[in-house]
Amino acid sequence: MNVKSDLKFSKRGDALIGQEMFHILERANEIEKSGEKVYHLELGEPKMYPPGRIINKTIISLLENRVGYSPSGGLLALRKEIASYHSEKLNKKLNFQNIVISPANLLIFQFLDIICEVDDIVVLFTPAFPTYIAACNYIGVRTRTVSLSIDDGFQLTKKHIDEALSLKPKTIIINSGNNPTGAVYDKEVLGYLLEKAVQKDCWILSDETYGMLSFNKSFFSMLNYNYEKLVIISSFSKIFSVPGFRIGYLISGSTVSDKISLSSSTLYSCLPIFTQEGIIIGTSIMDEFTKQSRKYYKKLSKECASIIDESDLLSCTMPDSGFYLFIDIRKTKLDDMIFCQRLLNEYKTAITPGSSFGYEGFIRASICGNIKEVKKGLRQMVLFANSL
Amino acid sequence: MNVKSDLKFSKRGDALIGQEMFHILERANEIEKSGEKVYHLELGEPKMYPPGRIINKTIISLLENRVGYSPSGGLLALRKEIASYHSEKLNKKLNFQNIVISPANLLIFQFLDIICEVDDIVVLFTPAFPTYIAACNYIGVRTRTVSLSIDDGFQLTKKHIDEALSLKPKTIIINSGNNPTGAVYDKEVLGYLLEKAVQKDCWILSDETYGMLSFNKSFFSMLNYNYEKLVIISSFSKIFSVPGFRIGYLISGSTVSDKISLSSSTLYSCLPIFTQEGIIIGTSIMDEFTKQSRKYYKKLSKECASIIDESDLLSCTMPDSGFYLFIDIRKTKLDDMIFCQRLLNEYKTAITPGSSFGYEGFIRASICGNIKEVKKGLRQMVLFANSL
Repeated sequence: MNVKSDLKFSKRGDALIGQEMFHILERANEIEKSGEKVYHLELGEPKMYPPGRIINKTIISLLENRVGYSPSGGLLALRKEIASYHSEKLNKKLNFQNIVISPANLLIFQFLDIICEVDDIVVLFTPAFPTYIAACNYIGVRTRTVSLSIDDGFQLTKKHIDEALSLKPKTIIINSGNNPTGAVYDKEVLGYLLEKAVQKDCWILSDETYGMLSFNKSFFSMLNYNYEKLVIISSFSKIFSVPGFRIGYLISGSTVSDKISLSSSTLYSCLPIFTQEGIIIGTSIMDEFTKQSRKYYKKLSKECASIIDESDLLSCTMPDSGFYLFIDIRKTKLDDMIFCQRLLNEYKTAITPGSSFGYEGFIRASICGNIKEVKKGLRQMVLFANSL
Repeated sequence: MNVKSDLKFSKRGDALIGQEMFHILERANEIEKSGEKVYHLELGEPKMYPPGRIINKTIISLLENRVGYSPSGGLLALRKEIASYHSEKLNKKLNFQNIVISPANLLIFQFLDIICEVDDIVVLFTPAFPTYIAACNYIGVRTRTVSLSIDDGFQLTKKHIDEALSLKPKTIIINSGNNPTGAVYDKEVLGYLLEKAVQKDCWILSDETYGMLSFNKSFFSMLNYNYEKLVIISSFSKIFSVPGFRIGYLISGSTVSDKISLSSSTLYSCLPIFTQEGIIIGTSIMDEFTKQSRKYYKKLSKECASIIDESDLLSCTMPDSGFYLFIDIRKTKLDDMIFCQRLLNEYKTAITPGSSFGYEGFIRASICGNIKEVKKGLRQMVLFANSL
């Protein structure tokens, strides 16, 4: 089926231009097909083994032929588990109506699309998770960025919040337990954000996917606050090392969560039952399992940062959470895209340029893969930097 | 978390109003919770057992810890299998670039959203699958309907096509192997549609989900034609009785399928690997398995139609494909919504009003559930109709 090249897409269609991260992955695959080994530090795909009970329960569910439709908002039992888990932590009452199940990536789009018109302003703090940028571009909102600084350890500060709100946003997106920097934001600053957002009647989308993987600093959840225009997103992908399950959730007032359920119903009907039933079993060991993960990632991030230190041209702040290092390559004088391309082609190491996060002069190394490969990849990076 | 009721959604958010089908399901669940039995004929959720090898392979994949990310466009092996399956049937060359994997329901939205602007006209032939209507409303295109007639057995005719094209549509959606009517469209008419669409430079979205379940008439696929603005959607949900796997596919020129991959990447990243690997194994027995299904549904639809015939106030055309009966209730003088509500409340039988398909005076019975329950539900419907 041949297609002429002059086909016209809609504005939204034209706004879909793809992420550099995936182009790098493609190029890495090409190199591997030619028989050469590539070290993968580009994707946040944890290689720890997921809890056996999640896999086992998913399998049992499949064996019981639970292959039909589930409710659009997610299985009631899963919504209840999440509500009760957070209610206990917060000492406040959430119920299942506050929870809706959907892939976390999709929830970003779903939320923005039901709230924002094309003319509305959405503020992102950069470096920012590429999906925020891609979803905003796709929807066509006016995206404004406020740049964080390595001098503050990429912390969000009151100054950044004032700057963000001066842009008159409809929505501010924050991401504590940050991807890519690993920064965990201060309670005091988040309190200030809430206060100012309430004053300006601004929505807050708080992506807390990496909150439970906070190992150097106590994680403060925006869930501690009550505000009708506050929406929290999280996911089981990173917590349980099951990114392919595609199960995340949103917590909000029921007016918003009901609308998101309708969005899911219209867009894709529902998620599988069996994956959700697997995750339900996982929730009972979430604290125990993430405690192990935190310990592991804390040790790992130290070891990896010390490899980076071996080059005078590279440096990074120590992450407080997650499994990424956001590395300053400005001393190499190379553009971050060029750095990543050359690192891949010459040193067979795949990594993501800071430009993908709206932040030039830096690169993101994902250290959640096979540990030997990760360290080897980082050493390749040091070799490359030192060769410049 | 309390939310005031005066929260404002975007235009798109406001356009999400939900489907009557799901409200009926909710009401049915309420009745069941009170301890009463409900006969379910409202959802197209096949209760045949899926091929064991699909379930087994999915389980093996889970046991092998294949719980990471897959490519946004779907696993290459699955795209290749689908391309080669259709290439053999059609005696033409499709390759994996023509195929993109995504839930079929979502593909309807993805396609319309990358092609249509708000001002564009999309033509549906009613009765129409509710997702077309919901997706069009959500995107905000100007939806125009052309009404098919029971007098033609709900066939698409040249007259309907002329009417559709006179509305100057950007896109026409057709659905042979129709849900809800079961009609399979004539090759000659589809050829006429293609000819006219080419003349008018109009997109055709051909939903062929039920094509392989065509038992009374040879199914003619639009894939037989080459036209750059022709896009085919199908799904494994109904073929293999695994609706909860959420795996469908789109076939088009690579300019469109590449764009849909980017859409998936932006919206939800990817589908699970393990479900796709299960389906890959299924494709080798697709013809054999659907042959059994066709035989089963042919017999079943006859038996069910003969139950409907027991009431003078009800009638239906014999479906050519699928597992729905679209029943004319106009002689009952009841509004179809009222009919369905009363049937559920008084006779404990859940069924979908024609209004959900943009077609009043009719109801859709899904007969793919447990056969005893289905027949009992239809008998309840006859009792109700005869009581009027």
